[in-house]
Amino acid sequence: VTPQQLREQLAAIVGPDHVLTAPDELVAYSYDATPLFQAVPDAVVQPGSTAEVAAILRLCHQHRIPVVPRGSGTNLSASTTPIAGGVVLNFARMNRILEIDEENLTCTVEPGVITGEVHRAVEAKGLFYPPDPGSMHISTIGGNIAQGAGGLRGLKYGVTRDYVMGLELVLADGTVIETGGKNVKDVAGYDLTRLMVGSGGTLAVVTKALLKLVPKPAARRVALALFDELDDAARAVSRIIAHKIIPATLEFLDQATLRAVEDFARIGLPTDAGAVLIMEQDGHPAVCAEDVEAMARLCREEGATRVEVAASEAEAQKLLEARRVALSALARRSPTLVLEDATVPRSRLAEMVRFIQEVATRYDLEICTFGHAGDGNLHPTCMADERNKEQMERVHAAFGEIFAEAIRLGGTITGEHGVGVAKAPYLEARIGPEALALMRRIKAAFDPHGILNPGKIFGTEAQAERGSAG
Amino acid sequence: VTPQQLREQLAAIVGPDHVLTAPDELVAYSYDATPLFQAVPDAVVQPGSTAEVAAILRLCHQHRIPVVPRGSGTNLSASTTPIAGGVVLNFARMNRILEIDEENLTCTVEPGVITGEVHRAVEAKGLFYPPDPGSMHISTIGGNIAQGAGGLRGLKYGVTRDYVMGLELVLADGTVIETGGKNVKDVAGYDLTRLMVGSGGTLAVVTKALLKLVPKPAARRVALALFDELDDAARAVSRIIAHKIIPATLEFLDQATLRAVEDFARIGLPTDAGAVLIMEQDGHPAVCAEDVEAMARLCREEGATRVEVAASEAEAQKLLEARRVALSALARRSPTLVLEDATVPRSRLAEMVRFIQEVATRYDLEICTFGHAGDGNLHPTCMADERNKEQMERVHAAFGEIFAEAIRLGGTITGEHGVGVAKAPYLEARIGPEALALMRRIKAAFDPHGILNPGKIFGTEAQAERGSAG
Repeated sequence: VTPQQLREQLAAIVGPDHVLTAPDELVAYSYDATPLFQAVPDAVVQPGSTAEVAAILRLCHQHRIPVVPRGSGTNLSASTTPIAGGVVLNFARMNRILEIDEENLTCTVEPGVITGEVHRAVEAKGLFYPPDPGSMHISTIGGNIAQGAGGLRGLKYGVTRDYVMGLELVLADGTVIETGGKNVKDVAGYDLTRLMVGSGGTLAVVTKALLKLVPKPAARRVALALFDELDDAARAVSRIIAHKIIPATLEFLDQATLRAVEDFARIGLPTDAGAVLIMEQDGHPAVCAEDVEAMARLCREEGATRVEVAASEAEAQKLLEARRVALSALARRSPTLVLEDATVPRSRLAEMVRFIQEVATRYDLEICTFGHAGDGNLHPTCMADERNKEQMERVHAAFGEIFAEAIRLGGTITGEHGVGVAKAPYLEARIGPEALALMRRIKAAFDPHGILNPGKIFGTEAQAERGSAG
Repeated sequence: VTPQQLREQLAAIVGPDHVLTAPDELVAYSYDATPLFQAVPDAVVQPGSTAEVAAILRLCHQHRIPVVPRGSGTNLSASTTPIAGGVVLNFARMNRILEIDEENLTCTVEPGVITGEVHRAVEAKGLFYPPDPGSMHISTIGGNIAQGAGGLRGLKYGVTRDYVMGLELVLADGTVIETGGKNVKDVAGYDLTRLMVGSGGTLAVVTKALLKLVPKPAARRVALALFDELDDAARAVSRIIAHKIIPATLEFLDQATLRAVEDFARIGLPTDAGAVLIMEQDGHPAVCAEDVEAMARLCREEGATRVEVAASEAEAQKLLEARRVALSALARRSPTLVLEDATVPRSRLAEMVRFIQEVATRYDLEICTFGHAGDGNLHPTCMADERNKEQMERVHAAFGEIFAEAIRLGGTITGEHGVGVAKAPYLEARIGPEALALMRRIKAAFDPHGILNPGKIFGTEAQAERGSAG
């Protein structure tokens, strides 16, 4: 099938208005939020229904054409870069909230719905969808499911994986299946639902998702603590958990991030502090008050130089501001931001942050680290310029060491961003060759011709060659 | 390989004391807690280490010998009946708690550890492992993982699936892999950990499990409500959820169960009540008190004829007694108890219970229904006598209708017992032929020669013949 024939057949399925083929349109889908990865697709298709997705997949399966499902493209692992060309499936038209079931505490959505819209819609009914990835005001639920998105509330509430109860899937050959359902308990066969979460669009295409909801917390309280020493902050985190408190969020900023934030937002934080913890508890007002007071006390006991407990929601917003602007504060400092999510068991937090700081010095790089202290999910973020090839080599070498150290500490190469293409070279070191081989066999069981998001998770041939050469 | 050679080679791996081959010993492993299924294995092996399990699997893989992993055999789906003969892997020797990590809130165990022992060990440290299947004082964690065990606390806390963070697995060919880890967030590759939960020993053998813990709730409160009408109780359940209360447990007994319980335990409950709800909240004392008071009020508003709120832990124990003795009360009424776990979305609870009662009348059977009202997980339990073939035919026909109705209501054929052999004939109706075919391909990706627990989930040839004949 020629590219022209392909486009005509796609147009016959979705209508000519929903097949994008102009060069500038294709370029717009040649990259996602991940720096350094770009490839132009042959066509971008905007299906309007499950039946259209199924027809597109039948066509692509028949002709062995790569298919790359894509939401808003906010992922940071090049998971939606069409590195093998083919068809990008854009879900902008399948973006409805189909049902909020207040009796069964579920929400049924199309994959293209924006995560933040789900939050607003369910919160208006006194319900709560906890997963809150950093990109939630732009990202889609379909993308969150593909990447296994996390967020700030992971420790207390879990992540996307814990809130997907069922899926409608289109398999590689166009077959439509449903998994799971509204049953809190269901063990009828293998758990295909969770297998899909975090599979990066390599196993099947999600066309509908049934999400679990919980009651919206009645209240929340926030506190912020400044420490001279990183180790004091890490010890405070351990003390909080040892005190049997599971905070809604427990965020961490290192000194470099703190300085960037203060330089950007002028919040009035002392830039000589070694580390910042931002703590939030939600739920019953008595629980919020007691837990936040206890966390503040534990921080003081571990040497916090300053602890602020917000007395009002407005003050809470102000304290949370430091964390919220971190990425923007860092983004304006350099043309290229390499944002990673090396993750370790919570008890190894201080060791990991110290290692990152040491690596940054050794490679003469500026790496700021912030992230989710409660769940050990760190975001070491390197200021760089992709036009500087020599610097980018150092960035890659530094992150190679950071991933290796995370693995050595019992951690992982990605806590919430996904493997995609960007982290494919590190996957084998994390899970071992036998588990990787097993995952390849699972991939083949779903997608025998390898048309679904080729190169993702398992890497490209170019990566394999680089790997064997190095 | 002859049976004698097999036994010798097994003895060479685990030592002769740990290979059982005497007829009476083999008979003891020919059945599990499921009535009507029995088959004698060729040998029972008690491995003492992962390396021994791996060696056993290499041997069985080479000679295409079925391997049936088994904990305490408390499952109700014939998941550990060695229907194809072969080797039963008994985990009685691999029963240690290896670590309780208070900093990372995890517990590492061998598969043969008793669930209740994990509860006691972690609660002694102020921690909590929520899954509480009915058999928890006998069942093993390995069995809970294989079956995807649930329990009373499923609605609020989730089920086994939600508390397994990592596994050590031996694959069919003896390869050992590790999945997951102590990271709260980890999206490095496909989620093999959760794929294993509920896979019934058909994909790999679990030799170690890393469990997630939470802080032990500080307090609990319990209440009991009696209703004349089933519909009133069901409406009370809906009102509780609509009131944004997620109780720790919310248990239901129908009139038939209530009568059996009262007859057995003489608790002093009026046997003319149409339904009983037992409600429990745990957590902060203020939350417990407010939620239980609110639930009691909602029950009264929906027509409860009597509501008792326990003032003390001793009173709480007394109220919980009615639910706890249900199974024993029913068991003494008949030689054979067919206990099922048809499950529906919570909003369809009353419809489902009424259908079960109607089916029981129509087939002239005594079916008592109790279960987890909060999560729609019902246990219709039929008093029968397996020696009465004609009656057993009616039992099968009745449950066939019950499963079909559960599916029609958006429910499932098994909420927490697993498919095993017993429910294999109903699986296709629940998930569809395409999803079933996909599961077969996943099975083949793990176990190309089909040695791991053959016949489970996908059914036996005899079942397939009966299916096509009917």
